[in-house]
Amino acid sequence: MKTDPRATDRRTRGTASRGETVPTVPPAPTADAVDVTALLERGRTLATPVLRAVVDRLAPPMDTVAAYHFGWIDAQGNPADGDGGKAVRPALAVLSAEVTGAAPEAGVPGAVAVELVHNFSLLHDDLMDGDEQRRHRDTVWKIHGPAQAILVGDALFALAGEVLLELGTVEAGRAARRLTAASRALIDGQAQDISYEHRDRVSVEECLEMEGNKTGALLACASSIGAVLGGADDATADALERYGYHLGLAFQAIDDLLGIWGDPEATGKQTWSDLRQRKKSLPVVAALAAGGPASERLGEILAADAKSSDFANFSEEEFAARAALIEEAGGRDWTAEEARRQHTIAIEALGAVDMPDRVRARFTALADFVVVRKR
Amino acid sequence: MKTDPRATDRRTRGTASRGETVPTVPPAPTADAVDVTALLERGRTLATPVLRAVVDRLAPPMDTVAAYHFGWIDAQGNPADGDGGKAVRPALAVLSAEVTGAAPEAGVPGAVAVELVHNFSLLHDDLMDGDEQRRHRDTVWKIHGPAQAILVGDALFALAGEVLLELGTVEAGRAARRLTAASRALIDGQAQDISYEHRDRVSVEECLEMEGNKTGALLACASSIGAVLGGADDATADALERYGYHLGLAFQAIDDLLGIWGDPEATGKQTWSDLRQRKKSLPVVAALAAGGPASERLGEILAADAKSSDFANFSEEEFAARAALIEEAGGRDWTAEEARRQHTIAIEALGAVDMPDRVRARFTALADFVVVRKR
Repeated sequence: MKTDPRATDRRTRGTASRGETVPTVPPAPTADAVDVTALLERGRTLATPVLRAVVDRLAPPMDTVAAYHFGWIDAQGNPADGDGGKAVRPALAVLSAEVTGAAPEAGVPGAVAVELVHNFSLLHDDLMDGDEQRRHRDTVWKIHGPAQAILVGDALFALAGEVLLELGTVEAGRAARRLTAASRALIDGQAQDISYEHRDRVSVEECLEMEGNKTGALLACASSIGAVLGGADDATADALERYGYHLGLAFQAIDDLLGIWGDPEATGKQTWSDLRQRKKSLPVVAALAAGGPASERLGEILAADAKSSDFANFSEEEFAARAALIEEAGGRDWTAEEARRQHTIAIEALGAVDMPDRVRARFTALADFVVVRKR
Repeated sequence: MKTDPRATDRRTRGTASRGETVPTVPPAPTADAVDVTALLERGRTLATPVLRAVVDRLAPPMDTVAAYHFGWIDAQGNPADGDGGKAVRPALAVLSAEVTGAAPEAGVPGAVAVELVHNFSLLHDDLMDGDEQRRHRDTVWKIHGPAQAILVGDALFALAGEVLLELGTVEAGRAARRLTAASRALIDGQAQDISYEHRDRVSVEECLEMEGNKTGALLACASSIGAVLGGADDATADALERYGYHLGLAFQAIDDLLGIWGDPEATGKQTWSDLRQRKKSLPVVAALAAGGPASERLGEILAADAKSSDFANFSEEEFAARAALIEEAGGRDWTAEEARRQHTIAIEALGAVDMPDRVRARFTALADFVVVRKR
C-alpha cells in the first residue's frame, strides 16, 4: 500500500481554502450521460416507502423515535420533510439488481436492509461518541435519552435481518449473510475508532483499515446486495463488493477533507469539525506520517492539544492554523490523491463483471459523484 | 385470559417465607427418569466450545470485554470459571434437534446463536436499566464503560446471525428468520419494561405480554431452533415454539417469585431485589389488581414509595412489610398458580409434535426443572 504522503510532494499543491472546492476528479467518459441526481432520486423513491412501512412495524415509542431519527417527524412529533442524506446506498442497491437483468425493484429489500443497518450504526455511534448533532438536528440520545438510542438502534438492526429473511429465498439468505459480515465490519470499525481516540499516534494504514470497516464494508454490501437478490453468483457479488469497498474508501477520504475544509453551509457541520473533535482522520494521520518541519510542528501542537483543558474554547484562528499545518505537511493533497486512487480501483473492479453498458455507466457516474460532492 | 388473582383465594395459601421453597410443581410422570443436571450439562458442554470460538472472532478489545461478560475471565483479565447461568437455552436447542431424529450436535449452531442473542440483550438491558451487578459480578458497562457495553452487545447480535447464516443451508435461513423474530420480541419487551417504569399502574395482561416478549420469545426459539436446523416443518417448529413460549412464561413467573422471596445466597441478588428496584413484576401487579384491603393498602404504599426521596435507604423491615402485603393480597399465590398454568400449557403443546418418547420425557423434565428451581 502506497501511503507515504511525501509521495504527493511532486504534484502541484491545491490552494483551495475552507469553503472552496475540495479536490475533484474529472468524470470518467461514459457511454451515455448519466443523470446522477435522477439515479439517487430513483433509489430514494423506491426504498423510502418500504423503509417507512418496515419502521412502522416497531412498537411505540420506538416507531416515533425512529421516525424522528429518519427526519420524518420533528422533536414535537409533527411531520417533517427531513434531510434524508445523499441516499447513495439505496441508489447502489437498486442499481446492482440491474446487473443480473432484474428490475431495480428486486434490489429494494436490500436497499432497505442496508439503510436500516446504516442507521442502526448512526444511532449507536452518536451515543458512544457523545455527538449531539447530525444533519443539523439534535441526535436521538439527546432528545429521547440514551436508552431509546440503544433500543431503537437494536430494533433497526433486527429489522434489517427481518426484511431480507422474510423473503424466504436462498438468495435472501445469501444477502443476509453478506449484510451480517458488513455489520460486523462496521462494529469493528467503530471499536477501532474508539480505541484510536485514546492513542497518541495512528498510522495511515490503521486509519485506512478503520475507514474500510466503517464506510467501505457497508457500501460494498450496498453495491452488491441487489445483484445477490437477483441471483448473481459469488464471483459477481465479490467484484461488486470490491467496487463498493473502494468507493467507500474514496467516499471517506472526501468526507475527511470536508470534515476539515468543508463549507459548514453545505455539510451541516461546524467549521473545522473534525479538528474540534480531535479526529485522527486521513489528512491528519497522513500529515503526521509525512515528516518534515510542518509535520513535526503539527505533532507537537496536537500532543499539547490532547492535554489542554482549554481546547473547547479555542478560536477559529487556532483551528485554522492547525488546518494550515496539515495542508503544509501534505495531508490535504495526499488525501485528495487517495480519493482518486480508490476511485480508480473501484472503477477497475467493475471490469470483472459482465453487465449492460447502461448499468456500468451508472455505477461509474455514482463513483464520480462521490468524489466531487461538497456535502 | 384468567388473570384475576382473587381466583386463587379458594386455594390453600402457601406459608413459605423468604429463603424457603417457592411453590413447586410435582414432576410429570415420565417414561424414564431424566437426569436434568446431565441434560443441562450436555447443552453446556456442546455449546460452550463453539460459543468461545465464535466470540474469539471479535476484534480486540471486544473479545476481552465479551469474555468478561461470559465469566471466562475476571476484570483483571485472568482466566475465571464464571457462573455461566443455568444453560436452559442451549439444553433446549440441542434437545430440539433430536425431535427430527438428528444428533444433538445438529442443534449446536442454534444453541450458540440463541445464547449470543440472550447475552446481547443482557449487555444492553443492564446499561439501559443501570444495573450494576449480574451473577454476583459487576456488569460490563460498570467495568468497561457504556460504549463497550453497546458495542459488544451489537457484536454478539451480529455474530448470532453470522453463526447461523454461514451454514449456508435453507434450514439455517429459516432458523435465522425465527431468531430475528424472537430478537424483535425481546426488544419490544425491553421497550415495554422501560415504559412501564414510568407508569403508576400496569395491568396483569400488560405484564404477561411484556414477559412473553422478554422471556417467552427467546425460549420459544431455543426450543425449536435445533428442530428447524434438523429440517422440521413449520407446524412442528410452531408447536415447539408454543412449548418454549409458555415455558418462558412459567420461567419468568418463578423468576418474579424469586425476585421477591428468593434466597439471596442462591439467586445472587439482594433480598427483596425486585421491590428495591420498584419492579412491576407479576406478584406486584396481580396483588394490585386483586382488590380488597391488602391490595388497596399496597397501592397506597407503592404510590407513596414512587415519590419518596428516601426510598434507597428503606430498611429490610420496610421491604418485608411490602412483601407481606403482596402475599396477603394474593399476588404470591396467583403467580405460583400462573407458573403451574403456563407449565401445563407448555406440556400440552408437546402433544402436537411427533417425537421419540425419550425426547418428549426430556422436554417434560426440563419444564419441571424450570418451575422448581430456586435460582
